[in-house]
Amino acid sequence: MQNQLVLTAAVEREDALRYTPAGLPVLEMWLRHQSRQREAGFERDVSCEVQALLIGEAARKFSGSLAGKMVTVSGFLSQRSLRNPRLVLHIEHVEFVKG
Amino acid sequence: MQNQLVLTAAVEREDALRYTPAGLPVLEMWLRHQSRQREAGFERDVSCEVQALLIGEAARKFSGSLAGKMVTVSGFLSQRSLRNPRLVLHIEHVEFVKG
Repeated sequence: MQNQLVLTAAVEREDALRYTPAGLPVLEMWLRHQSRQREAGFERDVSCEVQALLIGEAARKFSGSLAGKMVTVSGFLSQRSLRNPRLVLHIEHVEFVKG
Repeated sequence: MQNQLVLTAAVEREDALRYTPAGLPVLEMWLRHQSRQREAGFERDVSCEVQALLIGEAARKFSGSLAGKMVTVSGFLSQRSLRNPRLVLHIEHVEFVKG
């Protein structure tokens, strides 16, 4: 049951650190990706905005340091909530990209 | 500029094969993923629906054979169109999962 996204993107917006009812730190952010990809033999411009969450100690560690930065993140996709099918990336790993 | 999603999912719905104005075959489908993932030390149920496109010869090859099947697909995410930010997976590789 694979579910892994690896994405290089600019952190467009980073929210303030918040906590779940169970006390886990949560950092919510919006990622803007732009690249060229090859599809069916043609090069095409690809762009997308992905909402992303970082949960746990990493949220505290990266809080305040991501906005405006270019990062490569990996994690799994999930729907936002039981009632909201919007896709959200749950980040498991963050790496800053040297510009 | 990485952008790769690997996802194991059931093909919930498969549309009829269509063609782009340039004559490329396009197969559109909806994927339903369910799994358990580990996050911040806790196991959680993960579910999502992902709209996906297969473009080119592979679209013709797989047309009519995907609905109801379990597959592992890989590809890149893009927004639906310039005006529609909905995420769509552009499939580069399809593998049937033996059930």
